[in-house]
Amino acid sequence: MGKNRLEAFSDGVLAIVITIMVLEMKVPHGADVSALTPLLPVLLSYVLSFVYVGIYWNNHHHLLHTVHHVSGKMLWANLHLLFWLSLLPLATGWMGENPWAPLPNAFYGGVLLMAASAYLLLQRVIMSSDAEHGALQQMIGRDIKGKTSVGAYATAIVLSFWQPLLAQLVYLCVALLWLIPDRRIEKTSHN
Amino acid sequence: MGKNRLEAFSDGVLAIVITIMVLEMKVPHGADVSALTPLLPVLLSYVLSFVYVGIYWNNHHHLLHTVHHVSGKMLWANLHLLFWLSLLPLATGWMGENPWAPLPNAFYGGVLLMAASAYLLLQRVIMSSDAEHGALQQMIGRDIKGKTSVGAYATAIVLSFWQPLLAQLVYLCVALLWLIPDRRIEKTSHN
Amino acid sequence: MGKNRLEAFSDGVLAIVITIMVLEMKVPHGADVSALTPLLPVLLSYVLSFVYVGIYWNNHHHLLHTVHHVSGKMLWANLHLLFWLSLLPLATGWMGENPWAPLPNAFYGGVLLMAASAYLLLQRVIMSSDAEHGALQQMIGRDIKGKTSVGAYATAIVLSFWQPLLAQLVYLCVALLWLIPDRRIEKTSHN
Amino acid sequence: MGKNRLEAFSDGVLAIVITIMVLEMKVPHGADVSALTPLLPVLLSYVLSFVYVGIYWNNHHHLLHTVHHVSGKMLWANLHLLFWLSLLPLATGWMGENPWAPLPNAFYGGVLLMAASAYLLLQRVIMSSDAEHGALQQMIGRDIKGKTSVGAYATAIVLSFWQPLLAQLVYLCVALLWLIPDRRIEKTSHN
Repeated sequence: MGKNRLEAFSDGVLAIVITIMVLEMKVPHGADVSALTPLLPVLLSYVLSFVYVGIYWNNHHHLLHTVHHVSGKMLWANLHLLFWLSLLPLATGWMGENPWAPLPNAFYGGVLLMAASAYLLLQRVIMSSDAEHGALQQMIGRDIKGKTSVGAYATAIVLSFWQPLLAQLVYLCVALLWLIPDRRIEKTSHN
Repeated sequence: MGKNRLEAFSDGVLAIVITIMVLEMKVPHGADVSALTPLLPVLLSYVLSFVYVGIYWNNHHHLLHTVHHVSGKMLWANLHLLFWLSLLPLATGWMGENPWAPLPNAFYGGVLLMAASAYLLLQRVIMSSDAEHGALQQMIGRDIKGKTSVGAYATAIVLSFWQPLLAQLVYLCVALLWLIPDRRIEKTSHN
Repeated sequence: MGKNRLEAFSDGVLAIVITIMVLEMKVPHGADVSALTPLLPVLLSYVLSFVYVGIYWNNHHHLLHTVHHVSGKMLWANLHLLFWLSLLPLATGWMGENPWAPLPNAFYGGVLLMAASAYLLLQRVIMSSDAEHGALQQMIGRDIKGKTSVGAYATAIVLSFWQPLLAQLVYLCVALLWLIPDRRIEKTSHN
Repeated sequence: MGKNRLEAFSDGVLAIVITIMVLEMKVPHGADVSALTPLLPVLLSYVLSFVYVGIYWNNHHHLLHTVHHVSGKMLWANLHLLFWLSLLPLATGWMGENPWAPLPNAFYGGVLLMAASAYLLLQRVIMSSDAEHGALQQMIGRDIKGKTSVGAYATAIVLSFWQPLLAQLVYLCVALLWLIPDRRIEKTSHN
């Protein structure tokens, strides 16, 4: 099985996830400034999730770049990742409408945590399935960034019940951490 | 007619179907645990349907892998399959909101039954349209799995009116039956 | 400009149009047979529109098959066609919810009429833009089917205000007319 | 990184944006002419936005045509453009429902302004990232059209608070300005 269709399907799902989040932002009922105010936290949480999906799409691209043969295991590990990412619009909308409430913030963190774990799992499946992935292994190294993220999400979930805004700050910082281009992978994949 | 565009269109529809089901899960109105409770059966039915669409996408990929020339008949048999799969979000949402009611469970089974039959029909159209598909014929053999599924769905539809939860159990078991990789096809298509 | 991206974009829009129509079918509120009854005409109009989009996708594929170079005019003629097809979910939902009312039936016919005209326009643009399209010209001939459809839609729009069901019958017959494979094109494009 | 996946993802998002705007047009509740009246301004604003997304898709295609190697910067500049375009359905729906109100018109202009700026930024990133883009540089020249658009949007935002209809006229004129094919690019890219 070639990887083209796997990429095309993943791109399709990610493109839909990233644009469906807009649907969570309902057209305001009024036409003055007060109609826009409740939209602001929703918009901000949408921006955050947009960046997250962008990061996943970017990393997913680099990861699949190293794959030559798609196995059944890989396919299901990939669907598992897409499943958690497809829950992001719901989590984004809920957090955006209740920015000060603990549970929606914890739920958002939970979806991020599961997506990050699913990504690590997909990485492991790809590495174990192909002897040639010594290259990928070397590229990723000990994957401190991936493991730090999982730890940060878990911390933020706990923080949500104490200080929701702190949890949001953690989500923002992890996104920024990933926005800094991952030089190891880019360097390796260009050589 | 090449099969690329057929694959691209099918991937597009399946990607939309799999993510549109999220839209059935409305953002909860409250922000506490009680707001999440009614979401749970919807979430579970979403997981089940997600797995089903994943299975269809996977099998569809293997099936089209054997096709060289796309005929008009094949195209319409494919659209027929996509039609029934595109009803899955509706059936999922209805069953998720009424997990104990007979009719939504039977409806869900009916959509699965029609999709499975449409898949068998597509398989037959592909096999009959091309002499070379002796290979596919050999791969699929008597297709016990496909025929068992259709029988199980029909049984579950009847069960829905007596014990809805039993019907759901059948849907789950058939999904698990398909999750076990189909060694015959993978083996053949890799040689 | 290659035609790949034009095809990919058109496939994307058509895949969304065909699945978005499902969203018009809201999850029923109850869980018994009476909850399904109002869904029936919506379902039937959805089936009809599904077949129409399938026909357009099929014909669109054959039409673009003959194109070598995509001009700016072609691109906008194609977007014009996609515009009218993207109105189909709205027209379908409105007719499905008001199967006996004149205006929704006429509106549905109007969208079909404009889509058919847009298709004829795209055909003309493609033929005029490329000298080699003598082949396409020969394939299509006097395009009696295309022109008959436009006339039938116009008639059905008038019929809507007198007997809505007659208009629906016309829509159904034109769809069946197109479902019969267009032997001229298939024959030519396979030689 | 090849540009195929970047194009596929962008096409996916643009195809969804262009069709999601239809969802803003709710199925009318009645079945007579009075049910259609409130839909008219929504439909007109949808047409305008459809043309805008078509223009962006067209120009985006020409722009990426000149790219050989996709860098991380380019990828994020592209996502930044898609972000603003994905806000267009919301802005379209709000303006369409409040065609005489200043704020929705200004908001629409703001989204167009940000999208146009994001496009200019993407153009600059592409030109600066690759020495070979002297060709693109020459093609675009001083990009009077791009800069005029940004100025026109800014003017229209101010006009919105004084005469909303004038702002809409500006949006329409800029769209028409872009519909006139950009001969410089077509000419260069065909040679």
